[in-house]
Order: sequence, then C-alpha cells, then structure tokens
Amino acid sequence: MKLWEKGIATDKQIEHFTVGNDRELDLVLAKYDALGSIAHAKMLGQIGLLTSEETTSLVEALNEIIADIAKGNFEIEDSFEDVHSKIEYLLTVKLGDAGKKIHTARSRNDQVLVDVHLYLKDEVKALKEQVKTLFDLLMESAEKHQNVLLPGYTHLQIAMPSSFGMWFSAYAESLIDDVTMLNAALKIVDQNPLGSAAGYGSSFPINRTFTTKELGFETLKFNAVAAQMSRGKAEKTVAFAMSSVAATLSKLAMDVCLYMSQNFDFISLPAHLTTGSSIMPHKKNPDVFELIRGKCNKIQALPYEITLITNNLPSGYHRDLQLLKEGLFPALQNLKACLDIAIFSVKDITVKDNILKDKKYDYLFTVDTLNEMVVSGMPFRDAYKAVAEQLEAGTYQSPKETQHTHEGSINNLCLDAIKDKMKAAF
Amino acid sequence: MKLWEKGIATDKQIEHFTVGNDRELDLVLAKYDALGSIAHAKMLGQIGLLTSEETTSLVEALNEIIADIAKGNFEIEDSFEDVHSKIEYLLTVKLGDAGKKIHTARSRNDQVLVDVHLYLKDEVKALKEQVKTLFDLLMESAEKHQNVLLPGYTHLQIAMPSSFGMWFSAYAESLIDDVTMLNAALKIVDQNPLGSAAGYGSSFPINRTFTTKELGFETLKFNAVAAQMSRGKAEKTVAFAMSSVAATLSKLAMDVCLYMSQNFDFISLPAHLTTGSSIMPHKKNPDVFELIRGKCNKIQALPYEITLITNNLPSGYHRDLQLLKEGLFPALQNLKACLDIAIFSVKDITVKDNILKDKKYDYLFTVDTLNEMVVSGMPFRDAYKAVAEQLEAGTYQSPKETQHTHEGSINNLCLDAIKDKMKAAF
Amino acid sequence: MKLWEKGIATDKQIEHFTVGNDRELDLVLAKYDALGSIAHAKMLGQIGLLTSEETTSLVEALNEIIADIAKGNFEIEDSFEDVHSKIEYLLTVKLGDAGKKIHTARSRNDQVLVDVHLYLKDEVKALKEQVKTLFDLLMESAEKHQNVLLPGYTHLQIAMPSSFGMWFSAYAESLIDDVTMLNAALKIVDQNPLGSAAGYGSSFPINRTFTTKELGFETLKFNAVAAQMSRGKAEKTVAFAMSSVAATLSKLAMDVCLYMSQNFDFISLPAHLTTGSSIMPHKKNPDVFELIRGKCNKIQALPYEITLITNNLPSGYHRDLQLLKEGLFPALQNLKACLDIAIFSVKDITVKDNILKDKKYDYLFTVDTLNEMVVSGMPFRDAYKAVAEQLEAGTYQSPKETQHTHEGSINNLCLDAIKDKMKAAF
Amino acid sequence: MKLWEKGIATDKQIEHFTVGNDRELDLVLAKYDALGSIAHAKMLGQIGLLTSEETTSLVEALNEIIADIAKGNFEIEDSFEDVHSKIEYLLTVKLGDAGKKIHTARSRNDQVLVDVHLYLKDEVKALKEQVKTLFDLLMESAEKHQNVLLPGYTHLQIAMPSSFGMWFSAYAESLIDDVTMLNAALKIVDQNPLGSAAGYGSSFPINRTFTTKELGFETLKFNAVAAQMSRGKAEKTVAFAMSSVAATLSKLAMDVCLYMSQNFDFISLPAHLTTGSSIMPHKKNPDVFELIRGKCNKIQALPYEITLITNNLPSGYHRDLQLLKEGLFPALQNLKACLDIAIFSVKDITVKDNILKDKKYDYLFTVDTLNEMVVSGMPFRDAYKAVAEQLEAGTYQSPKETQHTHEGSINNLCLDAIKDKMKAAF
Repeated sequence: MKLWEKGIATDKQIEHFTVGNDRELDLVLAKYDALGSIAHAKMLGQIGLLTSEETTSLVEALNEIIADIAKGNFEIEDSFEDVHSKIEYLLTVKLGDAGKKIHTARSRNDQVLVDVHLYLKDEVKALKEQVKTLFDLLMESAEKHQNVLLPGYTHLQIAMPSSFGMWFSAYAESLIDDVTMLNAALKIVDQNPLGSAAGYGSSFPINRTFTTKELGFETLKFNAVAAQMSRGKAEKTVAFAMSSVAATLSKLAMDVCLYMSQNFDFISLPAHLTTGSSIMPHKKNPDVFELIRGKCNKIQALPYEITLITNNLPSGYHRDLQLLKEGLFPALQNLKACLDIAIFSVKDITVKDNILKDKKYDYLFTVDTLNEMVVSGMPFRDAYKAVAEQLEAGTYQSPKETQHTHEGSINNLCLDAIKDKMKAAF
Repeated sequence: MKLWEKGIATDKQIEHFTVGNDRELDLVLAKYDALGSIAHAKMLGQIGLLTSEETTSLVEALNEIIADIAKGNFEIEDSFEDVHSKIEYLLTVKLGDAGKKIHTARSRNDQVLVDVHLYLKDEVKALKEQVKTLFDLLMESAEKHQNVLLPGYTHLQIAMPSSFGMWFSAYAESLIDDVTMLNAALKIVDQNPLGSAAGYGSSFPINRTFTTKELGFETLKFNAVAAQMSRGKAEKTVAFAMSSVAATLSKLAMDVCLYMSQNFDFISLPAHLTTGSSIMPHKKNPDVFELIRGKCNKIQALPYEITLITNNLPSGYHRDLQLLKEGLFPALQNLKACLDIAIFSVKDITVKDNILKDKKYDYLFTVDTLNEMVVSGMPFRDAYKAVAEQLEAGTYQSPKETQHTHEGSINNLCLDAIKDKMKAAF
Repeated sequence: MKLWEKGIATDKQIEHFTVGNDRELDLVLAKYDALGSIAHAKMLGQIGLLTSEETTSLVEALNEIIADIAKGNFEIEDSFEDVHSKIEYLLTVKLGDAGKKIHTARSRNDQVLVDVHLYLKDEVKALKEQVKTLFDLLMESAEKHQNVLLPGYTHLQIAMPSSFGMWFSAYAESLIDDVTMLNAALKIVDQNPLGSAAGYGSSFPINRTFTTKELGFETLKFNAVAAQMSRGKAEKTVAFAMSSVAATLSKLAMDVCLYMSQNFDFISLPAHLTTGSSIMPHKKNPDVFELIRGKCNKIQALPYEITLITNNLPSGYHRDLQLLKEGLFPALQNLKACLDIAIFSVKDITVKDNILKDKKYDYLFTVDTLNEMVVSGMPFRDAYKAVAEQLEAGTYQSPKETQHTHEGSINNLCLDAIKDKMKAAF
Repeated sequence: MKLWEKGIATDKQIEHFTVGNDRELDLVLAKYDALGSIAHAKMLGQIGLLTSEETTSLVEALNEIIADIAKGNFEIEDSFEDVHSKIEYLLTVKLGDAGKKIHTARSRNDQVLVDVHLYLKDEVKALKEQVKTLFDLLMESAEKHQNVLLPGYTHLQIAMPSSFGMWFSAYAESLIDDVTMLNAALKIVDQNPLGSAAGYGSSFPINRTFTTKELGFETLKFNAVAAQMSRGKAEKTVAFAMSSVAATLSKLAMDVCLYMSQNFDFISLPAHLTTGSSIMPHKKNPDVFELIRGKCNKIQALPYEITLITNNLPSGYHRDLQLLKEGLFPALQNLKACLDIAIFSVKDITVKDNILKDKKYDYLFTVDTLNEMVVSGMPFRDAYKAVAEQLEAGTYQSPKETQHTHEGSINNLCLDAIKDKMKAAF
C-alpha cells in the first residue's frame, strides 16, 4: 500500500528500485514516527480538527504501537512502502475514519523530518555518553600510568621524552573537542520541523508551538522552507560531528597498532583482543584496533557522501534525499560499535615498563639537557651548539628522568583541569 | 637562513620543494607570530628567563614589527625559510643576544600552532560577522517581499504556494545553523597551544596560564600532546564550519541561477551583476552567482583534503601538516569573498510580480482547497479523491491566495522569532 | 570455526565487531573462491604436493560446491568466519586429509585477493555490457528524434538551438569515455595475484604461471608485495571507473528531472515511471530519475571512502582492508541497478514537439542569424553589434530552423562515426 | 577588455571576483590557445571564410606569439580578462580586421576546451615519462639490493621474510597500473572538442575533421554537446589517473618514513635529503618524503573537488566550470614536482645490511620451516601445530635464509617480465 497510489500498477522492478531497503532502515524510526504522531494527534485535538475521543483513541493506539515496537513486535511487510504507511494502516484498521485523520495537516516529508530529527537527537546524546565513558577510562589510565615514560616522536624520529600519562590524557582531552562538535550537532537537530508539510507549510491552522513542547524540542525550525532544507543539512552536521569523534579514535587506533609492533613494543593486548594468522603461528594481530581505525576512516567519508547527494539541488524536496538514511544510519551504529569496543579495550592495554632503557632512546633527553644549560644562563643558540658537539663527539650523557613543571607537561598533567573542561563542555 | 641549519648545503631543488609557497602563506600569520612572541617574552620575563630590560626591548621591537606589518612594510625574503625565521632575524639584528633569547622554551611547532589558532579565531569571528550581515539583508528582503507569491516545488514539479518572504527568510534561518557550527569551531580554536614545544612540552618552568590570559584565549589546550594533535583537527573543524556556510550559499546561488532562467523568470539581476556572451548578444548570465556556487562547492572539498593529509598519521608532528595552510588559507579568503559578494548582490535581486498568473501554476492551490474541505469536516482521503476528480475533469478552480496561519508559514513568517534565534545563537 | 583459532575463547562482542557482515558479503565471492581453489589444487597436483587422486577428488568436490552455489544451496553459517573457512570445512568433511591440504602454499590474503580480482573482472565486464546496451538505446532515440528541436542553455539561460538528436547522442558518446575507464579497470584487475601468500610470497615451489592460465588472467601481478598492494588499488580503480559511469548517468538524470518540470516541459514519462504525492493529487514525480541521480552521486563517494581506508597505511596487509568489500560490493549492485533502470526507462521518454514555438525561445537563433551575416561578408564584431541592436529595438526576426552542417552538429549528428568509436573502444 | 562588454561598467569588486586568478592560470594555456587558433585559422581559410592572405598573416602572427611565449615575453595584463582576449587583441592590433576574424565560428568555451585538452595531453604524456623514469630507478635498486633481506609485516606485526629487491620492484610494478590509468586519461583527452562553439555547435560550415588532423588529435569528440560535457569530465579523468600515481608515491613515502625511524632503521638518507630541528640537535628528519606523502595525499582530494564543482549541474556550460583550472593546474605541477623529487631521491636511499640479525626477527622464518615440513609430507595443519609448539617451548630454530622459487618471490623477482609488462603498457 502506497499512500499516493491511485490505481495505476507500478512495475515490480521500479518498485524495488524506488523503495530500496527503506523498510529495514525505517525500523529504527518507528518509535519516533509514533511519538511524532502522538504529538500531531494531540495538536489536531487542541485546534479542533479531531474530537477529544478521536484524539484519545489515537494516542492510546499509538502508545500500544510504541509498546509493540519496544517488545520487537513491529515489522514493515513488503506490502507497505514505509513505516508511515504501516502505522497509518494499523491505526485505520483499529480506528477506522479516526485513523485516517491522523494524516490531516501533514505530509510524509514532515514525518520523515520529525522522525529523523528525534532519532538523531537520541543518537547524538548516546554518542556523547559513550565519548564521556571513553574519556573517563583514558583519564584513569593516564593517572595510573603517569610515571611510565615513553619516547615522543616527531617525523617518526625519536625526539623527546613523553609518557603514558601524556599519551592517554592527550586523547582524552581531544575528545572534549569532539563533544563540542556533538553539542553543535545536537543544537542543530533540536529544532522542530513538524508542520512544514511538503516543505512550504500548510493552510491548516496547526499549532507548531504545541508540538514543539510536546516533543521536547528546544525550539522550532520556524520557516517551513528552512525546515525542509534541514533535510541533508541536519544529517551532514551530525556526520561532521561523527567524523570528528572518528578521527580521534582512528588516530588512537593507529598509535595502538604501531606501539603493538615488535619494533616499538610499547604496549600489549590480551589474547581476546588479538587474532592469529592462518599461516604464521606466532602472530598476535591487533585486528580490533585495525578495524576501529578502518571503520572510523570509512565514517569520515560519510559527510562527503551526503554532500554529493545533496549538492547543487535547488531548494524543495527531491527523492534523492531518501538515500541519506542508507549511509547515515549504519554509520551511526558503526561509530557506536567502535566506541563500545574502544571502551571495552582501552582498559586492557598493558603498558610496558623500562622502555627507555634501550640505548636508541639515549638522545631523547638532549633538549632537557640543553634547557638546563639555558636556565643556568647560557644563551640558547650556544647551548644548542654545545649539545650538538657532545653528540658528535659521543660524550653526551642522558639524564633518563624528566622534571617538567608547566601545565600539561609530563610531571604536571593537569588531569583535574581537563576533567573540569569536559564537565563544562558536556 | 634556516633555524636548524648546521652547515650542510641543501640542494636548491629540495629547498624549493620543502619550502614551497610557505613564505607567501606565512604573511597572514606575521601579526599573530609577533603577538605570540610578545606574550612569550613577557612570560619569560615573569619566570626570570629574561631580564625586565630584555623583555621590554623585545616587546617594543615586536610592537614595531606589528606596526610595520600593518603598514605593509613586512616581507619574507627568499633567504628566510618562514615567518618565524624572519622575525627572529629582525629581533637579533636589533637586540643582539636578547633577540636570540626569544626562542627559549619554545619550538617552531609551538609558534605555528599559536599563530594558526590566533589567526583562525579572527577569521571565524569575521565569518560570523559576514554571516550576520547577510542574515540581516535576507531578513529585510523577506519582510519587503513577504506578500509576493512564488510557486513551491517538490521533485522540481510545481507543488504548493510559496512566497519570496518564505524563500529569503528560509536561507536566513538556515544561516543560524551555520553560526552554531562557527561557534563550535571558535570554541575549539580558542584554546592556547603555546607551550607544547615540539609536541611533548618543555623542561623549562614556563607559565602557560600567563600566556593564555595574555593572548586572550578562553582556556588552555592543557596536554602538550593534545595541543600538537590540534594541528589538523583545528583546521578541519574550521573547514567543517566553512563547509556549512558554503553549502547554504551554494544552494541559494543554485536557486538564483534557476530562478533567473527564462523558464522560471522569477527574479532578475541588474546589469553589473550579469555578464554577456562573446557570441550571443541577448544573454544576461548570472556569473556572479554561478561563481558563488562553484567556489562554495570547492570549499566543501576542503575538509576532505585536510582529512586525506592527516588521516592515519600516528601522533606527533609530521612535516605533512605544513601543507594544511595551502588549502585552508585561500579557502578562507574565498569564502569571505563569496559572502562579500552575496551581501553585495542579494539586495539587488529584483523580484517579479504576478508570477502565479501563468496558468501552469493553477494547480498550486489544490492542497489548500483540499484542506478547506477537511476543515469543513470531510475526511482527508475523501477530500483528496474529490480534488483529484475535479482535476481529471478539468473543473478545478484555483483560489490564487493563501491564508496560512501557523508559525513559519507564508502569512506568518515569524521573522521576529527568527531574529531572536539568531541573536541567541550569535 | 576460525582458521587461526588456537583454543583461547574470543569474546562474543569482539567477534561480532571483527567478523561484521563478512559472511553476507562473502556469498558473492563463493563461486570465485571455489574456482581459485580448483586452480590451486590442480597446480599443487602439478608440482607434486597433491597426489593425482587428491587433486581429482578436490576438483570434483569443488565443482559440486560451485553447482550448489549456482542452485542457491550455499550458505555461510555463524559458526564460520568467512567463505574460505566454510569451503575448507566442506572439503575436509568430504575428503578428510585431502581437504585439509587445499590450504597448502596459500593464505587467506591470497584467497581474498584472487576472489576479488575474479569477481571484479566479471562485474566490470557486466557493467560494460550494460553501458553498451544503454548506448544503443540512446543512439536509437537520437536517430528517432533527430529532427525535434530543443533550446540549448548556457548558464541556464536560453542560448542556442539544440535537438533531441544532439541530447540523446551526447550522453551516448560520453558513455564511450566511461568504457575507456572500465577497460583500464579491467586491465588492472586482470592480473593474477594468487601465490602472493600473506603478501611476501611462499617458500613452496608453486607454479603461478600455471594458475594464471588456469584462471584465465591475462598476466601475473608478479611481485608478491605488489600483488598484496593491489588490495585497495584494484578496488579503487574499479571505483574510479564506476564513478565515471555514475557521473554520466547522474547528469542525464538531472536533465530528465529538469526537462520534466512544468517550467521546461520538454519530455514526459509514462505513469509507471512516476510516483504521486500523499498530499498533492496532480503531481507526477520523476522519482526513478531522482533516485538514479542520488544513487549515482552516492557511488561517486566510493573512491573517497576507499582512499580514506587505505591512505597512509604502510605496505603489508592490515585488517582495515577487509572493510573495502562493505562499500564496494553494494555499490556495484547499485550501479548495475541504475543502469538497468536507465535502460528500462530511456526508451519510455516521450519527447514534446513544437517546444520552440513558445516566444521565450525567439532569441535562440540570434547566433545563426549573426553567422549568416558573417558568411555574407560582414565582420563578426559588426554583425554582433547589428544583431544586438535589432534585439534592443525589438526588430529581430527568428528563422526557427537550423542548417548546421559540421561534424557533430544538429543536422549532421555523425551517429555512425560515434557507433564506430564505441565499437573500437569496447 | 572583455569580449562581451557592451558598454556597461562592471563593478571592480565583481570583476575581481569573477576573473579571479584566471590570468595567471591562463599563462600555461597561452601556447595551446595560439596553436588552436592556427588550426582554426587554417580551417577558416580552407572553407573560404578567410582569404589565403588573411590565413597566412594570422598563422604568421600566431607563430610569433608562440615564439614570444617560449621566450617568456608574454603576459596577460589586468586590462584583459583572459588569455583569449589578450591574443585576439594582439592579432587585431597587428592585423586589423583580419585579426578580428579569428573569432569567427568559435566561442570562448570552444577555445578553453581545446586549450585544456591540448594542455592535458602534454601533461599526461610528461607524467608518463616521469613515471617511467621512476620505474627504471626502482627496478635498478631492486636489482642492486635483491639479496638484502628485510622483515615483511602484516598488521604491522613481524610476519615473513621480504627483501629490498621485493620492496623496490613492488612499487615499480605498481606504477605499471598507474600508467594504465594515465593511458585511459590520455585516450579520453585525445578527442578534438574544437567546433562545439558554445556547446551546441555552429551554423558555420566548419570542417572539424581538418582541425582534428591539424592539431594531432586521435579522433573527434563528435557531438558538440558531448564535447561541452567533456569539460569537467576530462579534468576528472586526468585527476583520477593523477590520484592513482599519487597513491603509489604516498605509500612509498610512508614506508620510507617508517623505515627511517630508529625503531625500524632499515634505510638512511643523505644529509641533503633530511632536515634538522630547531630544538633537537640529533634529528635527521625525512621531510622530503613526508612532503611527497602529504602533497600526494592532497592530490588525491582533487577528483572530489572536481566532482563537487560539476555534480548535479544540468548539461550546458556554467561559469562554475571556470574554477576547475584553479585546482587542477597547480596539482599537475605538484605531482610533477613529487615525481621529480622521488626520482632525485630514490637512488640516494641507502639500504642497511644485516637487519635480520636482531633477535626480534627470529620468528620470521616460521612459515618457511612449516612449509619444509609440509613438502616433506606432513599435513599442513599438523605442521602448523608442531611449529606453534616449538615456539611456545622456545625450541624454534630459525634458518635465516630464503629459498623461494616461484614467480615474483624473493629469489625469483621476475624483473625482466615486469620490465616487459611496463613496455607493453607504456
């Protein structure tokens, strides 16, 4: 059953092409579609387009549908084009004419918009929670391993001393920026598009302020054309924020894979986080982190996909927009899975002690030595040359310990200040 | 003169390859580099690594350099690798040893980071101002033309009535979301990275809280490794926000180009905003808006360029990061130029009256008709069929006027509420 | 059953994360995996690592598996990690030790590489066939409608006369370039990677020339490291070629959507190729072409996704590469579906007659008029001014017919030459 | 002087915005523009639109311009919009009316198209030559260092033996695929677009077969609309091929940077290919290869930029297309510079001996050991378990030498076959 069907048979192949995997993707929207319908029904009651009996019975029936969805008793059969058709069908079967009336003063565009906005609000909030949990674990690891030194690299060349305290909390602090991006996305999706109808508003005397409160949106996307234009824009904004989180995770995973290599050997992972090889019995591969890296890199292609689909389309709805769900919805699940696995795995990273005793790291402390000379009064350029000469002569003696004092340095990680910043940003 | 030069001649070709167009790009950073040096010098004085005389003379010399930059009397000759070398050279020529000391307790990485953060703060603020100016103009046009009707399209098919009031204010309201993105970018670049040295902090007892206040940053990027990782991340975040603005402008430009086409003929532009053809004397081409569209589409490729350069690089500085300026800096200028031109042009858009009198727009009001029947008590699906039958029989009579009442509809644009939203977001 | 399992329990969540939807994606590879195994088994027989009985029984068993796959009687249950494990299991159950021996002298990397190369060869060939079919249909339409004039646009402004003959055959000729790209992709995937083992070759005395002939590859990817590096590169090359085809289809679809708009009204589509609106009874929406456009735009993001996953990974296998299938395989099905639907739909495009009688197209012929003056001896710039003056004075008289003679012009479409070019390129 | 100017003053700001940096970019097109004009003039002579005197004097004047361009005596002053205006101006100053006549029967679109096609042909050929030179050098290094072993990695874990012979020739063989892509691009740009005029052909009786031969194009892009559509498509195809080369170079550079790290220490670079640090005197940074990597990654964003600019534009010229030069032209120069530097640097890579004597590489040969057992008759899975047990017990003894025999393996690199493949592909 298609809402617009007027009796002309549509070719099977065409139908398959146009409907695609919408039914499957729409399942996650079902709850939000019902919630949107409840708000819409109450509003129609409030403005007198539904009787209070009709409103009450619609709200009851929709709450039953929500309960069924929660229990997993909801599906969209092949005879229905999408979630909207299915729910309208259920209401009509149960309530007859009252069920039909739910579609008064709204359009499918409207419904998709409100469903997607509500869904994205929940998903972005869930992402924020996961990011916060990962932040907490990274901060814990930073605290625990704050005294374990690590070589710091520039140009992949051994450069200066670092520490696991620095390394873990660096990723934690980076996640605060990702929360800022998620907040921006949240603010942008937290605007009620319901009532925009087919993208130009409606001649019905609907009350959008009412549905805004009912649905818990912070404000309205007032202009109906602007509400329609948020299709694609909302998705892209969320994708930008997802990309931001994904880039942080991907970089962390790259470090883990590198540090797991026998050539670095800075960390190790327990057996359940590694996999073997069909042909090399001694291998312990960090597949889990490689897949976090790969999946997070793939997620970073999402905004580009959305841009390609929406770019250069004039204003107004185009069917192309239907395809946005297909990339975004699985990407959200993938990012949540990556965060879950990162949360699951980060605490299992075992840190190696005594890394710096290997003599290839002897030069790590040259800058610290040089700085000491400067603090003792030698001009920087002269100290630089003196250390360079010691190095060429092979007489350089490495201190092997750091005494860094400034904010955010090895011996003054400012973990509390970073926690406060996260708290303020969250 | 290269800071790291130790006497070995570097091949010309290699030098050209590695330095690239850095000198040219660095010019916009010169002011920020001097400001960063002033803060650094004051801090070195405060912690006793510079005498108060040295500090005073460095600050004075740097202020003179800033004055020269403002007057256009600053250049980076081929004998200098970058802006940092040039400024250090000027200080050393003028102040001797005191000049050399400015490099104490910092690294070029540090300097680039702080320069770029300061620069991006200013640029993002400037973008916000331009967006606000464009918003105001679009809102003015919306108010002025609020009663001029326009066909609204879905699937590029004539659908429902819209208006120039709707159209102009839709783009205005969309810009509010772009401001939210710019704010997120601003918050992310408003964290002091100075003191991260080569990316792992310093053994000098520097005072980063002091430089944070001195430079007007809202907070520190505490962790030195996190500060280093903000290279690329800061740029990408700004690029995301730029993309957001660019997408809005691009869509507006697409609409303008379409509406200028003789097949739509909804608007016209004055002669100075159109160009002719070398071969078709009657042409009045909307090149300005085509170029806004094209330039804004190009800008939307920027985040992907940044991602490609930075992706899968492990933590720590890599020379690749130097290339970020090359894409970002001109893109910022291009976006500002597009906004300037849009601001310059939008007010010159002439709106055509009586568009809807053409009979191809007769069906525009079918939904309004249908809604009236519903308000009068007919069930939606029945009204839908009734109108469909009138259409098939050719008996449909179009009202030609709208009486939309809800928030964000043709006859209730909520311009004040949209203005308030912008105010709150700004 | 995982090939590398050594008895340590792997956490469920981790397993789900690492295996992902590989089983489902691997189904399309099953046939190729069996074919690769047949070639491998024969080769092992040839070099004496299998007895001729073992070889024969393996080949027979594999042919049975191929027959089962063809009949749809093959699945990869949750107890198997991938298609390779499943097929090895089937062989082992049936043949015992001989079944186990099929894995001699190869690695899963090897198998995936050869499977993907064989699969892509077939898919690219299938795409070429579809492109050729669409080419033929477009050429037929060009021939049929060669005398129906159409306005040509530059800057979306009415510019010069064009025709449906020009329009249809322009897309046909563009498809020839796409065939050139598909040919390049085909050449690149037509190199045997089998024998590269885990990416560094094998110490077994295998005969790769033998398997190359057996599998019908044009040549070997000789170097085992190069063979391993073709993972990602082969996929990206195919994605480039797919993007090329997709861009052509997307542009065609954009034209169709625009030309279907009542403001152009150049073409129409039969009812089964359009859809209605839930709220606007008179709508006939070109959803099919909007979805071709959207799906083809999405496909154009694929090379970027592949690049993001593979970029900056050093040589050697990484688990990230497993994720390439997830984007590429559905994109191939989507592109084939878009081509199918385009083939299905293009012949149903109805072309409107008498488009140019509308007076807004009067200026279309100004250039032809101007050219006539020039042919009669007037300097171009003077003729240009003369026509411009007629236009300003409103005295310009339009000829309404074209007499273009050059190669590739309205009255000399060179359809045979274009067909010959396709033939030569194919 | 703008070709289309009709006397109305165009605002300075608008002019700056629309002309952009076209004059600068157009300089590389000047030669091709003159060559295109020579062919066009000869053709106009051949069809009688120019007298033979006019033709001769135009050809002479254009050859003088070409000579000036070669000597560096050609510039495009601010008073000219682009290269086409400048050359037409020069001809008119010199030849009066005959000079004006060169614009007969063509359009600027035409000129840009033919200029860009000719330019891209030359550039792609130059890229091919450079790729061939790099291939030759890599093959030389492979031959020279074929006996120096190297650990091979999977998942960045030490896996199996490899060699510098394998490593160098792997990149060489990969370049053959890039040549295949360059050939496809070459074939696509080797089609004459001249005569398409503003994109719909011309009513002049021009002879496009004549100009095709004159300009050395392999064939015509017959259909004038198809010729116009090649704008963007030609550029993107070249960008795809450039991306292909760039991806190979980027991966090589990533390997070099990793192998230069003290944690791998497989290779070293001479002083002139490394740079120092302003703060760490012992650093020898592989900036040159980092910049190859970064620049090549940036180049891989080019196709997406082109796609974003051109996507969803209906057929026919749009001013947006002018912006394609801005990304493509510098990217071509950058790729050529990267190839130059790679050619310059690859021969200077010093390979370390005795890498495998470090005991962390002891397990490298487990697969070879295992394979020996299998060749001696033990089933693979049993041998796998036996080696795994030796490893757990610490009793495993490593052979430290390879005896690989198959095509493309360490001891049988097939360098001649790879050279033959390049020859055939070139």
